[in-house]
Amino acid sequence: MIDRNRKVKWGILGCGKIAHKFANDLLLNDNSELVACVSRDVEKSTAFAEKYNIRFSFDSYEDFARCDEIDVVYIATPNSYHKEHSLLCLRNKKAVLCEKPLATNKADVEEMIKVAQENKVFFMEAMWTSCLPNIISINNTIQKGIIGELIHITADFGFKTGYDPKSRLFDPNLGGGSLLDIGIYPLYISLLLLGKPKSIRVSMRYCETGVDTSCSALLSYENGATAALFSSFETVTDIKCEIYGTEGKIVIPGRFHEQNEYLLSKQGFSEQLIKSEKVGLGYYHEIEHINECLYRGEVESFIMPFRMSLDLIEIMDEMRFKSEKFS
Amino acid sequence: MIDRNRKVKWGILGCGKIAHKFANDLLLNDNSELVACVSRDVEKSTAFAEKYNIRFSFDSYEDFARCDEIDVVYIATPNSYHKEHSLLCLRNKKAVLCEKPLATNKADVEEMIKVAQENKVFFMEAMWTSCLPNIISINNTIQKGIIGELIHITADFGFKTGYDPKSRLFDPNLGGGSLLDIGIYPLYISLLLLGKPKSIRVSMRYCETGVDTSCSALLSYENGATAALFSSFETVTDIKCEIYGTEGKIVIPGRFHEQNEYLLSKQGFSEQLIKSEKVGLGYYHEIEHINECLYRGEVESFIMPFRMSLDLIEIMDEMRFKSEKFS
Repeated sequence: MIDRNRKVKWGILGCGKIAHKFANDLLLNDNSELVACVSRDVEKSTAFAEKYNIRFSFDSYEDFARCDEIDVVYIATPNSYHKEHSLLCLRNKKAVLCEKPLATNKADVEEMIKVAQENKVFFMEAMWTSCLPNIISINNTIQKGIIGELIHITADFGFKTGYDPKSRLFDPNLGGGSLLDIGIYPLYISLLLLGKPKSIRVSMRYCETGVDTSCSALLSYENGATAALFSSFETVTDIKCEIYGTEGKIVIPGRFHEQNEYLLSKQGFSEQLIKSEKVGLGYYHEIEHINECLYRGEVESFIMPFRMSLDLIEIMDEMRFKSEKFS
Repeated sequence: MIDRNRKVKWGILGCGKIAHKFANDLLLNDNSELVACVSRDVEKSTAFAEKYNIRFSFDSYEDFARCDEIDVVYIATPNSYHKEHSLLCLRNKKAVLCEKPLATNKADVEEMIKVAQENKVFFMEAMWTSCLPNIISINNTIQKGIIGELIHITADFGFKTGYDPKSRLFDPNLGGGSLLDIGIYPLYISLLLLGKPKSIRVSMRYCETGVDTSCSALLSYENGATAALFSSFETVTDIKCEIYGTEGKIVIPGRFHEQNEYLLSKQGFSEQLIKSEKVGLGYYHEIEHINECLYRGEVESFIMPFRMSLDLIEIMDEMRFKSEKFS
């Protein structure tokens, strides 16, 4: 448990693009202090530290993980390193916020959670969407039954990028593929709102490296509700989410995973635009949530609990290993 | 073959809601003459005839079918009567435009086509969407490769109506259910643009009468393209269609099946709104197409050929008999 009278001391492991975005939002948070960063590339970590006025910069992950000044580490390395880097920090009694997906298979995620529990330190998957006031508001609206029983959800996340076998996105060794990289957002929304599906049917398109370039899924639930999910590196989609209930509809417009507004259409009423707070790029709210968890001495997030991370990876495993394959 | 110097003489079998809409569009067409109508309810057929200034009105389908004044009959009775009424007219050498779905199973559709061929008369399913200039323009744009290779299609058609076991929509004996009633439109679009799928996965919600109240399908194609289709009597959707290609996107906005415009977003260009002609409610274009077929002496439509009707019913059979069922 961290004393509420002091700031939570954050370290960032990995100094790439996402680390920069996260650091900018950290600086906006009054309860956070960015104290350390690390990259194997010393120039990268030094430049990062200078840019954000960070006291400790490392070029050794091990030294970083042993640094007593750090309360909580944000893991921002490529997918395939998440496990190794999380375990290193957790074993050094550092709380960990690890970029999603936590790992590339369920067994690895289970091991990571086990190590967090054994070491009694906080651990959470960086599904920042889960902490956004907009998503929390939507979830509340739905849980209150305002749009009735959920019948159908659609969510898409597609962008177009040229095929490059050396890019992280297409490299199976770095946990590439559209599902793991972006399909996790549509999947998260359906999991949040409908829970674990009863059946999962998937079609994927594959590229030469063996990862999926497009992924289309039909998830079916106990009550007959369905979710139609789509992710792609081959085509530009609106990145929207539509939620259909028996009494109305919610649409989260473009870039639904980081949006600060939604449209509520209740049967017989005119459409309402509901706006929510969003600070910085949106990571701010995740940071604030984690600080709160640490002040309370929690080892698990109540917004993004272990169960949710296990469900996410279990479904993604099933999707990748049982899909119809095309190339 | 009908002489181009005279009007095509139409008869309408069934005088319900859809018959009224169709009659209004017929009156707009210079090459058409509405000469006869029939309903078992003599008051209904008399009123219909008076309203549209129709020379012959019948209360016997048999007498109507034998009337020499009629070239082509529009069948507008409930789904479960389509076969009986089409066969009656075809055997009396009348060309037939039959409301969709042609029948409620593939064997019946095959029989109807066989009878049309034996009697050498024109026969077509009233998939009027297929004749709309907007849909023809979209199909041309896609066939020309303007949005690249198709990756994914979504199409929905949902409205909300209270459960009423006596309503045509919920009555299995009248060919009820969301798939047969409205799901045929999303399915038609995917068939038109992507052809016959390699695999079909479906989840349906059922009501007490045994018909589906919502239907969600994932169709997968040889090249890995997918179509996510949804129809429902339980929730209001936009009734839109989105078509994603490797080089761009086409969106047909609300009530896509009768729309007269679409949005084309080509990679790297600004979005274009493309408008098409639409006369009357849109049935006009179907009427015009059939007149043309009859002037040419065709027995099959080149826009909505037998193959398309067979594929539609074959897929709907598979969807209904092989779906995961929920109630």
